[in-house]
Amino acid sequence: MKLALLTVLATVGAVTVNPLPQPQSIEWLNENAIVFNPCANLQLNIDNELVEKNLNRVLNSVLETKYYPQAIEKPISSYQPFPTGTVKRGNGAIDSITITIENSSIPLQLGADESYNLTIDNNAINIDSVSTWGSIQALKTLQQLVVYEKGQFFIEGSVRIEDHPNYPHRGVMLDSARNFLSVKKIKEQIDIMSLVKLNVLHWHITDTQLWPLQLESIPGMIEGAYLEREQYSKNDVEDIINYAYERGIRVIPEIDMPGHSRAGYINVNEDVLACQHSWWSNDDYSLHTAVEPPASQLDILNNETYLMVEKIYNEVSGLFQDDVFHVGADELQANCYNYSQLFVDWIKANLSRTYRDLSQYWIDHSIPIFRKIPNRRLMMWEDILTTPEAAFTIPQDVILQSWSDYLRGSNNIKKLTSKGFDVVVSLNNYLYLDCGYGGFVTNDPRYLDSPQNDEFNTGNGGSWCNPYKTWQRIYDFDFTTNLTDSEQKHILGAEAALWSEQVDNTVLTQKLWPRLAALAESVWSGNRDSNGNYRTNWLSQRIFNFREWLVALGYDALPLVPKYCLQNPHACDLYLNQTVYNDYT
Amino acid sequence: MKLALLTVLATVGAVTVNPLPQPQSIEWLNENAIVFNPCANLQLNIDNELVEKNLNRVLNSVLETKYYPQAIEKPISSYQPFPTGTVKRGNGAIDSITITIENSSIPLQLGADESYNLTIDNNAINIDSVSTWGSIQALKTLQQLVVYEKGQFFIEGSVRIEDHPNYPHRGVMLDSARNFLSVKKIKEQIDIMSLVKLNVLHWHITDTQLWPLQLESIPGMIEGAYLEREQYSKNDVEDIINYAYERGIRVIPEIDMPGHSRAGYINVNEDVLACQHSWWSNDDYSLHTAVEPPASQLDILNNETYLMVEKIYNEVSGLFQDDVFHVGADELQANCYNYSQLFVDWIKANLSRTYRDLSQYWIDHSIPIFRKIPNRRLMMWEDILTTPEAAFTIPQDVILQSWSDYLRGSNNIKKLTSKGFDVVVSLNNYLYLDCGYGGFVTNDPRYLDSPQNDEFNTGNGGSWCNPYKTWQRIYDFDFTTNLTDSEQKHILGAEAALWSEQVDNTVLTQKLWPRLAALAESVWSGNRDSNGNYRTNWLSQRIFNFREWLVALGYDALPLVPKYCLQNPHACDLYLNQTVYNDYT
Repeated sequence: MKLALLTVLATVGAVTVNPLPQPQSIEWLNENAIVFNPCANLQLNIDNELVEKNLNRVLNSVLETKYYPQAIEKPISSYQPFPTGTVKRGNGAIDSITITIENSSIPLQLGADESYNLTIDNNAINIDSVSTWGSIQALKTLQQLVVYEKGQFFIEGSVRIEDHPNYPHRGVMLDSARNFLSVKKIKEQIDIMSLVKLNVLHWHITDTQLWPLQLESIPGMIEGAYLEREQYSKNDVEDIINYAYERGIRVIPEIDMPGHSRAGYINVNEDVLACQHSWWSNDDYSLHTAVEPPASQLDILNNETYLMVEKIYNEVSGLFQDDVFHVGADELQANCYNYSQLFVDWIKANLSRTYRDLSQYWIDHSIPIFRKIPNRRLMMWEDILTTPEAAFTIPQDVILQSWSDYLRGSNNIKKLTSKGFDVVVSLNNYLYLDCGYGGFVTNDPRYLDSPQNDEFNTGNGGSWCNPYKTWQRIYDFDFTTNLTDSEQKHILGAEAALWSEQVDNTVLTQKLWPRLAALAESVWSGNRDSNGNYRTNWLSQRIFNFREWLVALGYDALPLVPKYCLQNPHACDLYLNQTVYNDYT
Repeated sequence: MKLALLTVLATVGAVTVNPLPQPQSIEWLNENAIVFNPCANLQLNIDNELVEKNLNRVLNSVLETKYYPQAIEKPISSYQPFPTGTVKRGNGAIDSITITIENSSIPLQLGADESYNLTIDNNAINIDSVSTWGSIQALKTLQQLVVYEKGQFFIEGSVRIEDHPNYPHRGVMLDSARNFLSVKKIKEQIDIMSLVKLNVLHWHITDTQLWPLQLESIPGMIEGAYLEREQYSKNDVEDIINYAYERGIRVIPEIDMPGHSRAGYINVNEDVLACQHSWWSNDDYSLHTAVEPPASQLDILNNETYLMVEKIYNEVSGLFQDDVFHVGADELQANCYNYSQLFVDWIKANLSRTYRDLSQYWIDHSIPIFRKIPNRRLMMWEDILTTPEAAFTIPQDVILQSWSDYLRGSNNIKKLTSKGFDVVVSLNNYLYLDCGYGGFVTNDPRYLDSPQNDEFNTGNGGSWCNPYKTWQRIYDFDFTTNLTDSEQKHILGAEAALWSEQVDNTVLTQKLWPRLAALAESVWSGNRDSNGNYRTNWLSQRIFNFREWLVALGYDALPLVPKYCLQNPHACDLYLNQTVYNDYT
């Protein structure tokens, strides 16, 4: 075990850079550095406009950033001063880039081939891929291979990379419905996502607090927007989708229904809502109507609800090109419907009815509306099949997003995949990036210094999913634990989520990055080496450098360690024993 | 009780703005708004250059920011739509500002008078204060009173404010020795501190990881700096001190000794260090030599140590003007000295000696060196008198900074004040702003999904002082609990601390703000109303607006809530009952 680990380190230690995510296979053919001049008259052999655009972006970025890693990986046991890396220079200089794409018409959709081969040798860069999207991923690898030192851009040696993702769905969920996120800031996240080969932006656009999306079919929906400038026009949405598309990233919209619905509707037709004027009652939890203020959900039994749902779904479906549409369905609060006369009467009419029947009513009446738009798969939060109020049955092709389990609790993942549902993993205890910042609700006396508050103030401190999820926690997450082979085939991938109760433009970038890069690698090429050992500690140096690279690129990514730890690899390890991870596996 | 609370709210609800920190006394004489044109030819009656500079900064800021609060306080029980505030406009316009200072030569030092009276009436602004520093505080209040709407700057009515701080020491500790903080970013914090009347910047300049301060007397100390640009020159230090001074803020330097010492020394004379090449051994805690990597402390028994300490103290004392100098003395790790041959021999020579004798040796040999600089009080972390390795006795005039207690644990505060020591309160469980971001050490398998790790991953998640300290937690902190009157008199004030293992320029502002404003008010005018009830929930709206103001000023302060909560006061309360705090008191 130990020998194998050291071998890996030695191989990689030979050169300075290491792409993140780690490619499936990378073989340095020699260490004769090859000059790479991004502004030279390179011979480009590319017949694909989108790939050419990506190449130009890569070249410009390399040219502007002039990056050289601050400290490379080094062996563990030595505490000698860390030697400054000196790049060996060969005589070669890149003079051509050839990109060959088997089929440029493969659309950017779930499961599109993203594999590529990248070879740099004989002064030439050769990329070949099945689809456009594979070549774009290759260029992101290339961008991480070029370093700058003493006035020249280099690739450190001849290299051959064969690469492909482990999972087709690799993403992050952004929430623009608690606080607004500007188009500019969303694009910034797309830029960084593309650097680490994430390919899905799940956009939670609406919620009880805010409906920031302008709709032509229901203009009144936007009336409750926080500010005039905090709205998304049709052009804004297209802008974001196109920006992401050009970088090989899909945008999946989420209109959260029938829970998490208030803003917008309340300005247009209050009748489609239940409990929208109730106190949310977490001070009397037995009566609570919402998980957070303000309370409100769609009134499932009102026919008018479905008229609005159809208008909304049709218009938003037209805005987004992706084959997948997320319709929410999480955290339905049963108590809310005690405020609905329709519900009270419906129960009285047949006393055998339960909240589960109400959920089923929603499924039976909303799905046919959604189905009218052809060639589109629905995605929902797992709640629709896992909570005490769950529906009895939903269509088999719905993709379910699993978030609510706790420790080693792939129970829902197993339960759903064993029933044949495709699942995207977003377990909060690993992948919710907003955890650990305390609570946002006011008039909360639990922060007082009082014996009855001790557990709270030494415990979660107001953040229900406390503690904060570190990059190591994210990377160590084995989300297929205990799954059979056939169940594993139903895992489409994973998504981190950043709920925005305490997030807006000011802190968006640093709450995502560089942590999200740990997930990006885990879903691209896994979190273990070829011997099955965790490679977490080998990611340390790469993710610390990645963070410095982001800062060099102009992104306010969070520092993970004292810079001392970056400059002195493994000096900040908790265990000197480098195989300590093996004891846990 | 309820009546009293509502009275306060009603009084304040009458106008839109409310300064933060809340003045000791504010009386709105009427609600006839007074036009305040910052660029008009105001008649200025001020004979103090420093105060005039501050006034010009206030006027420029008002002019540029054009601020109007997004939502003002409103009564609790109503859920009607929130009406947009319309400012009543009178006919008056401010045409003069008169500032009268009793004694402009009072120096900016611990205990300098900061009281002021501010009256706005009859188209005139009148400020009077005992010292320059009081007038500067008055201007900060004035800055928060001016609002902008429909093309005009206003003060909303005639008003009389009488104000003074509850505590003379109101500060924050910044750490530039784990990651570097630029001069520009430190100045930004000084700017924001001045807005909320904080008056102490405690600058933890050095630590084991980094010595970023250039010294003329020992040039080699800077050799281990992270980067050439990440160093403080003498000019940088003077720049920061002057910048703070002009805003009424003292800068207290801290050179942490004899623990937390490695960087710098190791390039100059390794002999003055102990255990500097040891593994820090948190993987075998019985042998640990450091609380975080890298290990190293000053070798207390080496005479050469004191030669270096004297050179350092003399030069740094010359750089800083403040009457107080912080010499650290925290977290001395006994095990470290097992690596010191001097210590081993010293113990052998007299087997009755303990680590406490070693600490006393440090005190007895370092204090005389410090004492050679006249008119300077020393400040130390409480450890020097509270840990198992504590010294037996230290001079009575040393100011002690208390940080290590837990729940309701003002034991150390009481212990130290009862012995007659002056104390600055920085208890980590309320005032450490870096808590809750997980751990930074690498090769840490505790993040793995394993039964033995459950407590860790649902508990502190790697952050020893988890959870994150929210503004409510900070504000609710009663740091004089259980103290007698005479003990209370020894409380100089409080300081929040931001240790920088996971902080640098990119995130500094948002990790401090707006949370720190809650402390700023608590130490200025307290956390309770005149009836002794917590006014935490009444701070909600003001601190949310304050955060928006910071963003308008160009500072990346963290959002505390969905903007919905800002725009709908008290809709995001946990308890509908507004006197729920009283049940805890």
